[in-house]
Amino acid sequence: MDNRRNFIKKVIAAGTLASVGVSLPLTLPAAPQKGRASLNLSFQEGIAPGKSLNEKFDYMEKLGIVGFEPGGGGLANRVSEIKQALNGRNIKVSAICAGFSGWLIAEDPEKRRQCMESTKEILAAGSELGSVGMILVPGFNGQQPSLQMPGAREILLEQLRELAEYARQRNTAVILEPLNRGEAWFLRLLADAAAMCREVDSPGLTCLGDFWHMTREETSDRGAFISAGKYLGYVHMASRKRRSMPGEDGEADNYIDGFKGLKEIGYQGYVSFECGTKGKREETVPAAVKLLREQWKRA
Amino acid sequence: MDNRRNFIKKVIAAGTLASVGVSLPLTLPAAPQKGRASLNLSFQEGIAPGKSLNEKFDYMEKLGIVGFEPGGGGLANRVSEIKQALNGRNIKVSAICAGFSGWLIAEDPEKRRQCMESTKEILAAGSELGSVGMILVPGFNGQQPSLQMPGAREILLEQLRELAEYARQRNTAVILEPLNRGEAWFLRLLADAAAMCREVDSPGLTCLGDFWHMTREETSDRGAFISAGKYLGYVHMASRKRRSMPGEDGEADNYIDGFKGLKEIGYQGYVSFECGTKGKREETVPAAVKLLREQWKRA
Repeated sequence: MDNRRNFIKKVIAAGTLASVGVSLPLTLPAAPQKGRASLNLSFQEGIAPGKSLNEKFDYMEKLGIVGFEPGGGGLANRVSEIKQALNGRNIKVSAICAGFSGWLIAEDPEKRRQCMESTKEILAAGSELGSVGMILVPGFNGQQPSLQMPGAREILLEQLRELAEYARQRNTAVILEPLNRGEAWFLRLLADAAAMCREVDSPGLTCLGDFWHMTREETSDRGAFISAGKYLGYVHMASRKRRSMPGEDGEADNYIDGFKGLKEIGYQGYVSFECGTKGKREETVPAAVKLLREQWKRA
Repeated sequence: MDNRRNFIKKVIAAGTLASVGVSLPLTLPAAPQKGRASLNLSFQEGIAPGKSLNEKFDYMEKLGIVGFEPGGGGLANRVSEIKQALNGRNIKVSAICAGFSGWLIAEDPEKRRQCMESTKEILAAGSELGSVGMILVPGFNGQQPSLQMPGAREILLEQLRELAEYARQRNTAVILEPLNRGEAWFLRLLADAAAMCREVDSPGLTCLGDFWHMTREETSDRGAFISAGKYLGYVHMASRKRRSMPGEDGEADNYIDGFKGLKEIGYQGYVSFECGTKGKREETVPAAVKLLREQWKRA
């Protein structure tokens, strides 16, 4: 993220756009950088077969998986364990998946405070592990009572500004995740999450596109990623009908249109598996990795 | 709209996509048809100088404006007047702007009924005038009490299905308009409106992109139009800071990124002026038309 932000800033500073006669729109689109994007695959802890972190990492390295996404629960106590298991490997911690308590659009200020505190703890641990960020959902449908619009968004952004600054100082980020309406009505679309990032305007706040949720909510994977643009900090991957390994849902598991969008915005972050499997993990996992690499090439 | 829908259907029917080895994603993106798009400019009634419809239409014809967007209020009584004034001209009725009473996400069923009835009346009149559709906002911020999510969306879609069928039978459409949060929190993003169109799945329901509202809500004009895709039925145009004539807000009035999106989805509908002016109408209107044609070429 930082590289791209700086690139864009440098271009503007140098007046490159102005010198070719292009006037800047109010909404600055990400500079198209096709060719610079890369497919950096990452796994959540449950994806790879193996009984220990070391067995899992051995398996992942053989598949060329370069990212590991641990959960945020109890992460502070696992920093040494994870660091040790990753030592000397070609795998880095990608992002931290949630793990916070409370929620940021709670009516109850105490629940909001819990969320702020637990998020900061996880961000600090994630920062020690070099993670690009920690995934955060502002409020699930089941978390009630929640604030309504427009108050909910205002209070959310106030808190996100504080968290983003906290994260930025630690070279990491809060990653806002839109979910499908079955899980969270409050934030469902990438363009909506990106608009929050635009307002907070800090490298400490990015957003996430999850193909599973996008299948239900977005009309265009590519359009959604273009709207996310420079604010896109992370991507989640799953099959599109049952949230299994990509490919397990057959023809439905086509990610090419979305991958085109990622290439178009020069996305260099992780694409991380968050899914189950209906089959034998030793078969479905490598098949999924192969499928995604093929589709990435075709995109 | 119909042509593009049919085109896509034919492609699928013919198995063209399958024969080149592309499997269909669940969310079908609009087929890119760059080069087929055209800039068809339209004016609301207040835009052109002139005291009568005839004076306004004379002025518009000289500028090459091909669409006229009347308000929906009392439209049934104006059908003959408008038909007569358009007779023999190279201007057609583009869309009908609102004019309904009540609103579709009202808590009060009577207010919803009012909206359904008045919308149908306007759709019928608009159909007689050959309009592509009637612009509808599901609920303004000031219209209270309104239903909350998720109930609001379900009841809205139920009503939209009925209105879309009514419109389809008359060869016209309901055009859902997302507004900026200052006017309507309920529907702010093109991707959200497009997802409603996808669910209703009828040529009788499309959506609208208004550059004025998009400036505040969308992070990418192009991304938003790509997400709207085949569901995009109409576009509104204004300057980006004060909702004046395009160009009156100087450098901010850059529509090139959005126009690129329109070209990419092969948009052949209208781009209609909905704005005021801070200057002399006889100067600001032709200047705006010139600016948009230049930017369209550069897109």
